Amino acid sequence: MHQIDRIISNALEEDIHTGDITTQSLQLVQRTVSGFLKAKEGMTVCGLQVAERVFKALDKEMTFSSELTDGDQVDSGTILATFAGDAAQLLQGERVALNLMQRMSGVATLTAQYVRAVAGTKARIVDTRKTTPGLRVLEKYAVRVGGGINHRTGLYDGVLIKENHIAASGGIMEAVRRSRSYIPHTLKIEIETESLADVQEALSAGADIIMLDNMDLLTMGEAVRIIAGRAVIEASGGVNLSTVRAIAETGVDIISVGALTHSAPAMDISMLLEGA
Amino acid sequence: MHQIDRIISNALEEDIHTGDITTQSLQLVQRTVSGFLKAKEGMTVCGLQVAERVFKALDKEMTFSSELTDGDQVDSGTILATFAGDAAQLLQGERVALNLMQRMSGVATLTAQYVRAVAGTKARIVDTRKTTPGLRVLEKYAVRVGGGINHRTGLYDGVLIKENHIAASGGIMEAVRRSRSYIPHTLKIEIETESLADVQEALSAGADIIMLDNMDLLTMGEAVRIIAGRAVIEASGGVNLSTVRAIAETGVDIISVGALTHSAPAMDISMLLEGA
Amino acid sequence: MHQIDRIISNALEEDIHTGDITTQSLQLVQRTVSGFLKAKEGMTVCGLQVAERVFKALDKEMTFSSELTDGDQVDSGTILATFAGDAAQLLQGERVALNLMQRMSGVATLTAQYVRAVAGTKARIVDTRKTTPGLRVLEKYAVRVGGGINHRTGLYDGVLIKENHIAASGGIMEAVRRSRSYIPHTLKIEIETESLADVQEALSAGADIIMLDNMDLLTMGEAVRIIAGRAVIEASGGVNLSTVRAIAETGVDIISVGALTHSAPAMDISMLLEGA
Amino acid sequence: MHQIDRIISNALEEDIHTGDITTQSLQLVQRTVSGFLKAKEGMTVCGLQVAERVFKALDKEMTFSSELTDGDQVDSGTILATFAGDAAQLLQGERVALNLMQRMSGVATLTAQYVRAVAGTKARIVDTRKTTPGLRVLEKYAVRVGGGINHRTGLYDGVLIKENHIAASGGIMEAVRRSRSYIPHTLKIEIETESLADVQEALSAGADIIMLDNMDLLTMGEAVRIIAGRAVIEASGGVNLSTVRAIAETGVDIISVGALTHSAPAMDISMLLEGA
Amino acid sequence: MHQIDRIISNALEEDIHTGDITTQSLQLVQRTVSGFLKAKEGMTVCGLQVAERVFKALDKEMTFSSELTDGDQVDSGTILATFAGDAAQLLQGERVALNLMQRMSGVATLTAQYVRAVAGTKARIVDTRKTTPGLRVLEKYAVRVGGGINHRTGLYDGVLIKENHIAASGGIMEAVRRSRSYIPHTLKIEIETESLADVQEALSAGADIIMLDNMDLLTMGEAVRIIAGRAVIEASGGVNLSTVRAIAETGVDIISVGALTHSAPAMDISMLLEGA
Amino acid sequence: MHQIDRIISNALEEDIHTGDITTQSLQLVQRTVSGFLKAKEGMTVCGLQVAERVFKALDKEMTFSSELTDGDQVDSGTILATFAGDAAQLLQGERVALNLMQRMSGVATLTAQYVRAVAGTKARIVDTRKTTPGLRVLEKYAVRVGGGINHRTGLYDGVLIKENHIAASGGIMEAVRRSRSYIPHTLKIEIETESLADVQEALSAGADIIMLDNMDLLTMGEAVRIIAGRAVIEASGGVNLSTVRAIAETGVDIISVGALTHSAPAMDISMLLEGA
Repeated sequence: MHQIDRIISNALEEDIHTGDITTQSLQLVQRTVSGFLKAKEGMTVCGLQVAERVFKALDKEMTFSSELTDGDQVDSGTILATFAGDAAQLLQGERVALNLMQRMSGVATLTAQYVRAVAGTKARIVDTRKTTPGLRVLEKYAVRVGGGINHRTGLYDGVLIKENHIAASGGIMEAVRRSRSYIPHTLKIEIETESLADVQEALSAGADIIMLDNMDLLTMGEAVRIIAGRAVIEASGGVNLSTVRAIAETGVDIISVGALTHSAPAMDISMLLEGA
Repeated sequence: MHQIDRIISNALEEDIHTGDITTQSLQLVQRTVSGFLKAKEGMTVCGLQVAERVFKALDKEMTFSSELTDGDQVDSGTILATFAGDAAQLLQGERVALNLMQRMSGVATLTAQYVRAVAGTKARIVDTRKTTPGLRVLEKYAVRVGGGINHRTGLYDGVLIKENHIAASGGIMEAVRRSRSYIPHTLKIEIETESLADVQEALSAGADIIMLDNMDLLTMGEAVRIIAGRAVIEASGGVNLSTVRAIAETGVDIISVGALTHSAPAMDISMLLEGA
Repeated sequence: MHQIDRIISNALEEDIHTGDITTQSLQLVQRTVSGFLKAKEGMTVCGLQVAERVFKALDKEMTFSSELTDGDQVDSGTILATFAGDAAQLLQGERVALNLMQRMSGVATLTAQYVRAVAGTKARIVDTRKTTPGLRVLEKYAVRVGGGINHRTGLYDGVLIKENHIAASGGIMEAVRRSRSYIPHTLKIEIETESLADVQEALSAGADIIMLDNMDLLTMGEAVRIIAGRAVIEASGGVNLSTVRAIAETGVDIISVGALTHSAPAMDISMLLEGA
Repeated sequence: MHQIDRIISNALEEDIHTGDITTQSLQLVQRTVSGFLKAKEGMTVCGLQVAERVFKALDKEMTFSSELTDGDQVDSGTILATFAGDAAQLLQGERVALNLMQRMSGVATLTAQYVRAVAGTKARIVDTRKTTPGLRVLEKYAVRVGGGINHRTGLYDGVLIKENHIAASGGIMEAVRRSRSYIPHTLKIEIETESLADVQEALSAGADIIMLDNMDLLTMGEAVRIIAGRAVIEASGGVNLSTVRAIAETGVDIISVGALTHSAPAMDISMLLEGA
Repeated sequence: MHQIDRIISNALEEDIHTGDITTQSLQLVQRTVSGFLKAKEGMTVCGLQVAERVFKALDKEMTFSSELTDGDQVDSGTILATFAGDAAQLLQGERVALNLMQRMSGVATLTAQYVRAVAGTKARIVDTRKTTPGLRVLEKYAVRVGGGINHRTGLYDGVLIKENHIAASGGIMEAVRRSRSYIPHTLKIEIETESLADVQEALSAGADIIMLDNMDLLTMGEAVRIIAGRAVIEASGGVNLSTVRAIAETGVDIISVGALTHSAPAMDISMLLEGA
Repeated sequence: MHQIDRIISNALEEDIHTGDITTQSLQLVQRTVSGFLKAKEGMTVCGLQVAERVFKALDKEMTFSSELTDGDQVDSGTILATFAGDAAQLLQGERVALNLMQRMSGVATLTAQYVRAVAGTKARIVDTRKTTPGLRVLEKYAVRVGGGINHRTGLYDGVLIKENHIAASGGIMEAVRRSRSYIPHTLKIEIETESLADVQEALSAGADIIMLDNMDLLTMGEAVRIIAGRAVIEASGGVNLSTVRAIAETGVDIISVGALTHSAPAMDISMLLEGA
């Protein structure tokens, strides 16, 4: 919660800084208004609590309620939440709340599309580190809300040995051996493979997870047969909504999709004040 | 530069935190490698200096050079920059540098498309406050790089009197009067209008800028004729690449486009290390 | 509010740091006392809410009330506010609360003197960027409380083209042209002039605001006649309480006064505890 | 040095924030200029290194030199320092450098006046905690530069038992006893006295320092005779440039003056760029 | 309190960072549980309020109560505190609360042992600057709770002139003279001595406190006789539980012990949840 | 490196704050001295680079060199490093450098003792989360330097399902199932067991790591036989230098030892300046 409060605090500072000069200049008397957030297109809702915390960071006394839960699928026109509070504070918080919630709902909605696309296969949709700098914790949450699973959070909490690492270590066997002797016993070792020969070597080395990097469907299928359950299999590269199903049907366990976080369009949500 | 350094520092902390455990676990000897950034699709390049600063934040001694300048239009396959430095540090910085540069280039590329769409009219493309929380300063820069103009940075450095403000102040005349008596003489007053009647009242009130909010093309054209140069005119709402030209041709001065920053897809850029 | 809370938090840390060793060493039992703030000279009061927030930062449960509002003119001996709370916390907050309120009241009081000196003319008294580093937001507030108007907050929210800028750009015309093509449409352009020839050129260039820098009264009057309402006019330089009236009577719109913030003496306010 | 760097960093952020929009809008080519700081009235110079650090925080490569040292007494017209660096960075740093240096020189100059006023007596001029919130470390430095001595830095590094403390502890004897048993052996105990009876009790209690609070000259003289070197004596309250000499002549050791820091007017210093 | 809140906040961030993934992964419903802290060995309890603040930082609504006060001596098996709150938050806070309280109780317990060892002599046990980086304020508090006295907090609030300082100043006389002319009158001067000749010179110089550095018992006794109450005497170096009594019996006033903070073993405390 | 720099910066601020008043008061001329760090007892050295960075944070120009590497075993009297730099800065940094290095060497030395105690068995010594709040990254490094392995860094990068979690989830099977469906595929699942029945259930549930919590040697041995290589086995509880060998000989893979970080005594290291 601490990290999310810092994101909200930074976002409010970025937008408000020395104050909302428009509202100040109008010298309005303080007054309470009610309002609501409304979906202007169909979406997987995400960020309700974040929006609430944005407003409460500005006006502790405000009320905020919703009949929805993050992850609900709603149609255009749905009222997402209703609230009441100090008019000036609500106007100050509007843009930050929407900017966060529209982005989070965008990620959740896109993730849900990928998850539906692989329904019935055993493949899980996972995210990558291709997130918006500073917002990773929110975007990874939105992926889960959309039905996806998170890959490692950053460089610090998961081992993924890539081509450059392998070359510098002198091969897959040696790389896995060195890593195993060093890392906490609570972490698995994932290794990137470019060919079936790599896959064989990764298996011999005892890798826990084998990433199939940018392989075509035939090669992927062959890799799945070779691995035969002896390691978790992640497909990576060239994944989009039109290719993901076929990839899933090769039998891989995990499909990682950068677009979930780097290119999800914002969902359209608006805030309306009543009797303002 | 201070704000950008903070964005970079936060992004590196977010990704690296206690350390790149994969690289640490391989216990590699320190060694210098060279590498390059490469465009994997056509784009308006943006963020070259930001990428450089990401790497230099990790390895002060690294070299980084580019024959390009932010704003250059490049084809897929173009080498964007070459560099050399400590291999482990480059691998640690890769994802943050790309995450920032791909997003900035995305915003610049989309902005350039809008700017080209209105070429030959007097209309300028401007951004909004619908930016990524925490990255506004970079995204506003990318809009300029793409040929657009910035709207106010936040609530603190520009006056934009909206419907709720007008209602609470008791009308356009009174709102403009109050605001003028309060604000620094260095700021203009912009007011949102919903109808031609509003436009007339805004003119009488002496507003410096009149925003035409979600008006159809005919009404916009009529508003332009009524205003007749007595205020700057901003069109807002319902703007996309297929509508922006017609809007520009109504004679408005400014067209604000939220999508520039809230929905620009990331451009595809990759980093390659040589002899790593 | 965020910025003010940070100022208060820093000021308390500066004064208290590891703790009030005097009070700690006396090992007193916790007890509630009441007290009041009292004006020891006539002043325009400023900073009541800031003082309240200082105390509440240390003791959330304390009560604080005042029959006055910032901007009220009071005589020596007036009770400014009464309060009750934990004795040790009140003693810890006393100096910070007074340091801030005495300074803010000093700025407001001096501003009010300038405002009274130009009463009946159309000239407005404005501040400058000659503020106390770290306290600008409070001092600009105090200027408004004293009846003045704020100039731009900093380098980021207003355009003021000075002599050095003009020289480097190749003249007034070119400087205004370049600036206009770059800045948000929400900002005006102010330009510094040293002579009537400069004034003429600034008018031709379409500057929104013309600053008359260190001109004598005759030249200022001539400039006012030349400009004839086509730009806002700011007088700057050599302003003090004995010259400000004559400057105002030349017909300028705005008179900026650095002394409002860089040399206002602190007002004398004391805090007394009852039955402590 | 860490604290001063933070003051400078905050002050630059306060003034520059997202950037100097005037300079940016003029799209000038980068170029190096030289310049100087000049005293526009006689003063005790203070803050030369602080000004240098402001500029170097913006432009690491700049040069800065001065033939003066903080504490030097200079006439109006004296060149305080010369420098050369990037024009845009110098213009950005100008106001912050001057705001700090003018204030520090103001404090040093006023302190030097008090020090001269008591020349030939044994009394030392000391400051108080009535400093500008956030700038205490700089103002206490300026007092030393002006020839004064610092009182405790804050509540945490010196013991000063005041009236309220005494009342709550049940008398001077008990207050001193409790404090002595608690505090580090490296600290002295100072106690506030309102009468000669208090002075007697403080002596009996073994106070290291006795503050004579708002006493008239006769009472002060009598207190000095009673104490007879058995404690350090501080005079406090009602001190100004016309009373300080007589106070010093009563034989007190220390005279504390709040005005040194809360009401010193800024010294007039200007920055000029050559060939800019 | 501010400093302690920062320590707690940093410690929680260090341990929890992006979240307690174990608890999250179990997707438990929110529920309130009660629990208690229990001493698993005899100790001088320290840190009860710190533990409470750790938990309340995570769950504002939790209850926490204890029949003990910091400084109480308890046997193994004693219930130190009971509490109730949200199960997930209590589990998240457990380790940080225990890590702090076990360390603080360790310092208090060891200090109490030293204090008991010198009971009946006039010697006071004091700490040093050999504290855990970042936790000094808590460890110095724990020393007081254990019956010790604090030495200076850091380099900024006490004067201790050591061998290197003396050599660089040209002798003890000159060092004390310079220091006296500079420092606040609220501070004493302590000087390190290596021999009886040094002690004589320190006395002549008027040092307030004389540290006997690593002297044997005979020399210490001789130093005490020479000083004869004219300065406070601190013994330093080679102090442990088996030597401290003999040192105290030489008649020194103060014995400083680095081990109090740099080598106190953690006390064993456990947290148990009921009906969790 | 970023985290370590923050620890150093906080530690220096904690000790120096507004400045080293002793050194300032002596008004010494700046001068360069050389010096060295010396082991005053046998130890596994740890923290050489940290000490270097402490000094360089104060004096960028200083030189620092060592013929040792962290992890080297040295005898009492060994010179650990030599350096040269500004005398005042070295004196300011001394305590922080030593406080960090003595603690780190203490942890490394104690870890090395445990590692030697289990030499020849397959058991690895690992740390726990019982670290000094704020210093975890340094202490976990010291454990590795001493030959140990790190357990998870915090609650965020490893799954450890404990008794309370199991009870709240309705049993081991259900807890493992839920956790597996949620966590990144890069993490293993560790589960705490109290009995052989728990061990059986954990195996059935497919736990990756089974912790044997506070079991006696016989039960541990039996658990090892039951698990038979199907999960990693961690022994926890009641581990000290006299019991660790027997525990290792039961055939467990991992032995976690809280004392490595919560109770390692500081190693004695001193700093000497030459010609100071």
